[in-house]
Amino acid sequence: MQSAKKSLAEIDDAFVDSEELHLLHRYWQAANYLSVGQIYLLDNPLLREPLKPEHIKPRLLGHWGTTPGLNFIYAHLNRLIRNRDLDMIYVCGPGHGGPGMVANTYLEGSYSEIYPEIGRDTDGMRALFRQFSFPGGIPSHAAPETPGSIHEGGELGYALVHAYGAAFDNPDLVVACVIGDGEAETGTLAASWHSNKFLSPVHDGAVLPILHLNGYKIANPTVLARIDKSELHDLLTGYGHEPIFVEGEDPVEMHGKMAMALDTACDRIEAIQTAARREGRAERPRWPMIVLRSPKGWTGPKEIDGKKTEGFWRSHQVPITDPRQNEEHLHILEQWMRSYDPDNLFDDQGRLRAELAALAPEGIRRMGANPHANGGGLKRDLVMPDFRSFAIDVPSPGSVNGEATRTMGRMLREIVELNAEARNFRIMGPDETASNRLDPVFASTDRVWMADIEPYDEHLARDGRVMEVLSENLCQGWLEGYLLTGRHGLFSCYEAFIHIVDSMFNQHAKWLKVSRELPWRQPIASLNYLLTSHVWRQDHNGFSHQDPGFVDLVANKKADIVRIYLPPDANTLLWATDHCLRTFNRINVIVAGKQPQQQWLNMADAIAHCQAGAGIWHWAGSEDDSGPDVVMACAGDVPTLETLAAVGLLREALPDLKIRVVNVVDLMTLQSASQHPHGLTDAAFDALFTADRPVVFAYHGYPYLIHRLTYRRNNHENIHVRGFQEEGTTTTPFDMTVLNKMDRYHLAIEAIDRVRNLGPKAAEARAYFENCLSQHWHYVRDHGEDMPEVRNWSWRG
Amino acid sequence: MQSAKKSLAEIDDAFVDSEELHLLHRYWQAANYLSVGQIYLLDNPLLREPLKPEHIKPRLLGHWGTTPGLNFIYAHLNRLIRNRDLDMIYVCGPGHGGPGMVANTYLEGSYSEIYPEIGRDTDGMRALFRQFSFPGGIPSHAAPETPGSIHEGGELGYALVHAYGAAFDNPDLVVACVIGDGEAETGTLAASWHSNKFLSPVHDGAVLPILHLNGYKIANPTVLARIDKSELHDLLTGYGHEPIFVEGEDPVEMHGKMAMALDTACDRIEAIQTAARREGRAERPRWPMIVLRSPKGWTGPKEIDGKKTEGFWRSHQVPITDPRQNEEHLHILEQWMRSYDPDNLFDDQGRLRAELAALAPEGIRRMGANPHANGGGLKRDLVMPDFRSFAIDVPSPGSVNGEATRTMGRMLREIVELNAEARNFRIMGPDETASNRLDPVFASTDRVWMADIEPYDEHLARDGRVMEVLSENLCQGWLEGYLLTGRHGLFSCYEAFIHIVDSMFNQHAKWLKVSRELPWRQPIASLNYLLTSHVWRQDHNGFSHQDPGFVDLVANKKADIVRIYLPPDANTLLWATDHCLRTFNRINVIVAGKQPQQQWLNMADAIAHCQAGAGIWHWAGSEDDSGPDVVMACAGDVPTLETLAAVGLLREALPDLKIRVVNVVDLMTLQSASQHPHGLTDAAFDALFTADRPVVFAYHGYPYLIHRLTYRRNNHENIHVRGFQEEGTTTTPFDMTVLNKMDRYHLAIEAIDRVRNLGPKAAEARAYFENCLSQHWHYVRDHGEDMPEVRNWSWRG
Repeated sequence: MQSAKKSLAEIDDAFVDSEELHLLHRYWQAANYLSVGQIYLLDNPLLREPLKPEHIKPRLLGHWGTTPGLNFIYAHLNRLIRNRDLDMIYVCGPGHGGPGMVANTYLEGSYSEIYPEIGRDTDGMRALFRQFSFPGGIPSHAAPETPGSIHEGGELGYALVHAYGAAFDNPDLVVACVIGDGEAETGTLAASWHSNKFLSPVHDGAVLPILHLNGYKIANPTVLARIDKSELHDLLTGYGHEPIFVEGEDPVEMHGKMAMALDTACDRIEAIQTAARREGRAERPRWPMIVLRSPKGWTGPKEIDGKKTEGFWRSHQVPITDPRQNEEHLHILEQWMRSYDPDNLFDDQGRLRAELAALAPEGIRRMGANPHANGGGLKRDLVMPDFRSFAIDVPSPGSVNGEATRTMGRMLREIVELNAEARNFRIMGPDETASNRLDPVFASTDRVWMADIEPYDEHLARDGRVMEVLSENLCQGWLEGYLLTGRHGLFSCYEAFIHIVDSMFNQHAKWLKVSRELPWRQPIASLNYLLTSHVWRQDHNGFSHQDPGFVDLVANKKADIVRIYLPPDANTLLWATDHCLRTFNRINVIVAGKQPQQQWLNMADAIAHCQAGAGIWHWAGSEDDSGPDVVMACAGDVPTLETLAAVGLLREALPDLKIRVVNVVDLMTLQSASQHPHGLTDAAFDALFTADRPVVFAYHGYPYLIHRLTYRRNNHENIHVRGFQEEGTTTTPFDMTVLNKMDRYHLAIEAIDRVRNLGPKAAEARAYFENCLSQHWHYVRDHGEDMPEVRNWSWRG
Repeated sequence: MQSAKKSLAEIDDAFVDSEELHLLHRYWQAANYLSVGQIYLLDNPLLREPLKPEHIKPRLLGHWGTTPGLNFIYAHLNRLIRNRDLDMIYVCGPGHGGPGMVANTYLEGSYSEIYPEIGRDTDGMRALFRQFSFPGGIPSHAAPETPGSIHEGGELGYALVHAYGAAFDNPDLVVACVIGDGEAETGTLAASWHSNKFLSPVHDGAVLPILHLNGYKIANPTVLARIDKSELHDLLTGYGHEPIFVEGEDPVEMHGKMAMALDTACDRIEAIQTAARREGRAERPRWPMIVLRSPKGWTGPKEIDGKKTEGFWRSHQVPITDPRQNEEHLHILEQWMRSYDPDNLFDDQGRLRAELAALAPEGIRRMGANPHANGGGLKRDLVMPDFRSFAIDVPSPGSVNGEATRTMGRMLREIVELNAEARNFRIMGPDETASNRLDPVFASTDRVWMADIEPYDEHLARDGRVMEVLSENLCQGWLEGYLLTGRHGLFSCYEAFIHIVDSMFNQHAKWLKVSRELPWRQPIASLNYLLTSHVWRQDHNGFSHQDPGFVDLVANKKADIVRIYLPPDANTLLWATDHCLRTFNRINVIVAGKQPQQQWLNMADAIAHCQAGAGIWHWAGSEDDSGPDVVMACAGDVPTLETLAAVGLLREALPDLKIRVVNVVDLMTLQSASQHPHGLTDAAFDALFTADRPVVFAYHGYPYLIHRLTYRRNNHENIHVRGFQEEGTTTTPFDMTVLNKMDRYHLAIEAIDRVRNLGPKAAEARAYFENCLSQHWHYVRDHGEDMPEVRNWSWRG
């Protein structure tokens, strides 16, 4: 428990005004006081009477350890903002930093503006304390509920990548990013440092990383706190930064050091940006950063029951666990809280004293009120071209070939152009924009790259709308930060490797779910995925590249938030792209292949089909007024191809068999209307799939998902799904479908088996298809490519 | 196309014998020749006749870019092994490095020993070429099929963490780990560098990282290749290494530099280990590493059609794409292959010339034959204590309280002790071993930590069986490397954050699936997860910590490989722990809470119940000979608690209602026997769940999984599942179940609703339960903790 008041005069010889720091120190004390209050108190918020057990919460939940450091930084950033009129937001990386962020936004007033029930008086303070980690209250992390936050402190590791996402295309913004030394051990954070190779001093804002070394995680020291300072210096220099160290535990010295360090860092950022913008030349500078080494649980109890607490992991959570039951501990808590001298901080009405309130920035300069941290309010709709203008002309189904993603690339190029001036659209991808055939965009933009550029490099520039780095985590995190601050984007990725960001997806979905329930949070643009180079066309890359399971994870999330589209060809993909880029507060997943393949729908039909989400392809079927004998359903481009090929085989072999073809674009139509807003009514579902005929369903991913989505439907017992069965290797494209029994022959055989009693002709056809399968294997094994009849097959309507 | 032959004399003045390097250069040429051959040739393997279109494969699949560098390293490592009798394995990080790894193991003979059909003669070489990326052949990555590999080069990013896993507790092993500069951009790789803070020079082997900067990914430069050398030097120094740079493109110079660099690195490793082992003192040294900067596609065509190819990303895959169709390109290919001078490498029978063959190490010193790379062969079973001896005494169900994971921790402590000498068991966790209440293990071991240790640290030592770092990726990767080299382990993790390793889990499952199909791959110990701090008891940490979806991903994988256990109490957890640690070639997931709770089964009952996988808890039910009116089923500890509480409420309110309680421990019993080896027969399933009575199923995770697993069962229409519905926040434990409608009251109400026609007493009971729900909410909102009747509830049998 340190009090710095008496000796603050000592820093008179420093470059910083001591009176200013004296006040700042009290401001910090106020934030610390409010933080401890949130963790512990139900009542007696100002300690105007002696602390009693009944003032203490029955369950103590919260984390003190990181909080005083976060408060220290907040107070010093306020000083910077005021002195320099900075446009700054605060990304709070450390987990459980909630008490600090809430305390500071309460002190500056932004909290009460959003939550008027938490007023700036004694009653408000009581309510503030009570709601923290309390049922019906607020969580212990910086979270969607926290004003000024674009970042949930829960999972750890994404602070820096979110900060960069916020800074891109926001040239006047400075994003202060506090990185906990625990989260610094995570993979994403470790890679995030290299984000500075993608940040332009001309067109983007600045990120000021503040690595907060308080030395401990839950029960362990942290790696970066326990290596030599010189090694840490080398590491951060190697990451491209100029580190400024602020180290110590004496508040007096630390205030002076921190103020000077931040002034130095800001001077440096200004100099970098001014020079780059004056010359219009963006070379990668060595950006400043701060290393703040301060005790964990700073200003808290030094020891409890003889055990080291301040400056150790024991202060990670609630340092005093039983003040309600243990009188001595209650006394320690009271002493601790009184050490901040609350009477000197708050007046009789519980209001922050005027000389301290004057330290906070004003209006939207307050970090809790900065518009970038509620980015939906800044969001401007994308200017969209007419997606119909990129349509592939399809005179009749199957009559032309096309590349779906390349077609989409042409549309993206135009989107890039139409929004070039607004600078509010980016495309992220792990080195795969060209490989995924979105390369038409390079006609209107480049890949942004701030590291060295060689004369022979292609589409690499200091400015560009495409961001490529071989880290799905960085792509995802950058895009999240970009969207959360009010912009738009697309993440294109190999389907199998999107699992790398499963957990980030989860956290973003959780953020959206909570945000949607907060009226003051403005809707942000949807997070749009294009998953391509998908499982069925990874025959050449082998088993490690074959996994369609991401959508299963997606389907676990709240129906409000997630959408999954499986456009079967280019024109349907255009519709889906247009649709997804216009939505907000959602996560849209589009799965579409990049290989040339037959096109099925002209633009008008594609629009009608996509708007319905699922429909009968009458042109492909053979039913009459009495309805079908069998429904051949499909979702996904390769399943659609194989289904149509199976239908072709069946119609030739068994002309009397009445087949209906149903294609599903919007997977969520399969769920009941009660489960998902896009779900078909039962009547509409039955109108497509019938109430009682066998359905052979070829599906892009793991078959279970279709069962899961349809298990409440009338006909679900009759739905026989084929999809990826986790069989794969390096082979031919068609053999991939055979390995998983989703090829045309297996589908045709299953249709015959399910309809039954089709007579000898069917048995003959069945035998023929079996024989084709065996011929297939002999052929590919001998020739290394698919049989000509498979390679050259085309729909003959 | 460089030929170094003429000028190799120039390095006479170097420290390395030029004749040795001359031979080594030819060996490299042989490997390069075989690599190109694999990518292109169907026939004419030795080019003993002019190259014709029909000699070329119809589909060219493969990656040349990284291969010559990998071959260069392999040849030089062979030299090191021979000169120093090293026990060394080669972890090949770069994707699509297959041609190189296969070429080298073929040259050294280990390939043909495993695959005799690929003999060391012309026919064998033809077969070697043909099988590569060919249906029925082998994949393009270093993969399970590749001798000497413990690492799939597919997804990228895990090379270094696998290398460390292999080196732990293998003091005589040197793991050479080639890191591609593409994968170096990934999160996991970026964090992996810090693994050296966990490697003991006394007890562990050495990892020699070789950062291979060839400058490009698929279509982009790489970050580490485009920053200043001094910045890269700082970065690697900051990671704790002493980097040795080998840079250039002239083979002559490069051979000399590489040989010297590797000698220096090995000298340094030897010196470090000798000093540490002599003194028995393990301080963290600055380990050497190599930075190899060489052209992408080195020795390949410099230009094709006037476009830069060697030393650029255009050589990433197949540099000449159409030699079958384009005569000029065919000629370039032939020239390229002949530039290696095959007649000078292979004799008339296609055998590697004797003077070159003599360069490879012999026997198990060959990296393709090193036993560590087929670790199952080295695996020794763990010495296991009798798990019964840790049992909690449970005189009757619900009569005592216990902490499941702490009980497991006592068993783990004994496992650690019994296997202390064998040093073949480790426990990984992201800073959560104590938090997850496995801390009894600290009575017999510590956390290993090679960074600074302070006197007040607890259970932190230079040697220990517990590894903690705040990176799930590192925990997972270390454990994979450890298992793949024949050891055992457990990964304990917060349930929500295990999603961080979804993709690593996928890749390991794929590795196991393929390995199981290879008779020469010996079974390795299973990868065991303990998921704790689970969704239902993350009320205090909030929504970001609440996600039970990992098991959904697991259930997508091959039935042979995955098992999911949900032990409801401590004794069942003991059984599951014992069982999982004895299995091999599987991935076992155990989900169990850490909070104190009522215990249900004594040890004998626990064993019988777990062996069956699912069973009726007769002591809890109220059915008579006519069978139940309703089945109350449960899987997971909290669902079991809520189900039993619901049953208690129902039995009190409706004594005539006949209830059966079914508990499921082994989730895979729910699947049909045809889908999973643990699946119950339909008869056995019906004997538990009935064929026609309503089933109210309280499940730990997302409800869909139960539907998915049971959708083929007779009674599946009657199975009504309650589980996590993605509703959560910071609240009380019981309120978490209420938010998701899986609490006792909702379960009891559902039972009443499903049975129907229960009369006025049931309506009364229903109204009472509804009222309890409403009271609950008022109580927690007012008091911040659960109602006393919930907190103090206990089973009264």
